[in-house]
Amino acid sequence: MFHTDGFRVLDRRECLRLLAEVPVGRVVYTRQALPAVLPVNFRLDADASVLMCTSPASDLVRAVDGAVVAFEADEFDAATRSGWSVVVTGLATLVTDPAEHERLSRTGPRSWMPLRDGVFVRIESEMVTGRELGRAPGAQ
Amino acid sequence: MFHTDGFRVLDRRECLRLLAEVPVGRVVYTRQALPAVLPVNFRLDADASVLMCTSPASDLVRAVDGAVVAFEADEFDAATRSGWSVVVTGLATLVTDPAEHERLSRTGPRSWMPLRDGVFVRIESEMVTGRELGRAPGAQ
Repeated sequence: MFHTDGFRVLDRRECLRLLAEVPVGRVVYTRQALPAVLPVNFRLDADASVLMCTSPASDLVRAVDGAVVAFEADEFDAATRSGWSVVVTGLATLVTDPAEHERLSRTGPRSWMPLRDGVFVRIESEMVTGRELGRAPGAQ
Repeated sequence: MFHTDGFRVLDRRECLRLLAEVPVGRVVYTRQALPAVLPVNFRLDADASVLMCTSPASDLVRAVDGAVVAFEADEFDAATRSGWSVVVTGLATLVTDPAEHERLSRTGPRSWMPLRDGVFVRIESEMVTGRELGRAPGAQ
């Protein structure tokens, strides 16, 4: 589907394929009643939820656990003015189940920051939207 | 200043220098009580406010005009797990002054989307924060 303002809406399958190609996205949430955003490396889980690893003492965990947040990733090329962006919106929760934590310690994302005891935060992919700018119709 | 979790806090001058180097950032705001985020190309004005050009009929204008929003830009290198991010938080306003609109039509950012009658949105750089990950102390 093409919009008159020049971008193409991506379906959920296309969005998840693009999300899987990039290592870093941005968590968008509310902190002290102000909009806040933090880039993090992430991995998609098998159920398409977004997984991050962070410090248990981080502001992020306190701010997002139990809240609906957005998670955005994108890639743009300034030379061709083209690119894509995907936004996942859903409930964020701290992973507290020991078996799940153990599984993610083996298969989940590793924080780019040196952490002693990382915790995992999951964002459910309840709503997944995306758009592509500046590509020809039908281009792969 | 180095934090124990491995990133260095950037001062305002460093943040603005980095912001000036990238063409695209992300506006972070609230839409229908949910966190929302939209990537846009932008330019810094002489007073360090963030300028964007968009459609006057866009959801973005309706959602952010008169609201405090965040604006984020970053660059990361997955191979070295290094990079930086900067967040500007401040009041967003639609530029309505004709002289200012005329000035920005000449010197301001141009939308990457084909627009007939673009409008400019300004985000005041009231709070500017940034951090750098994975660079050696003292590195330029």
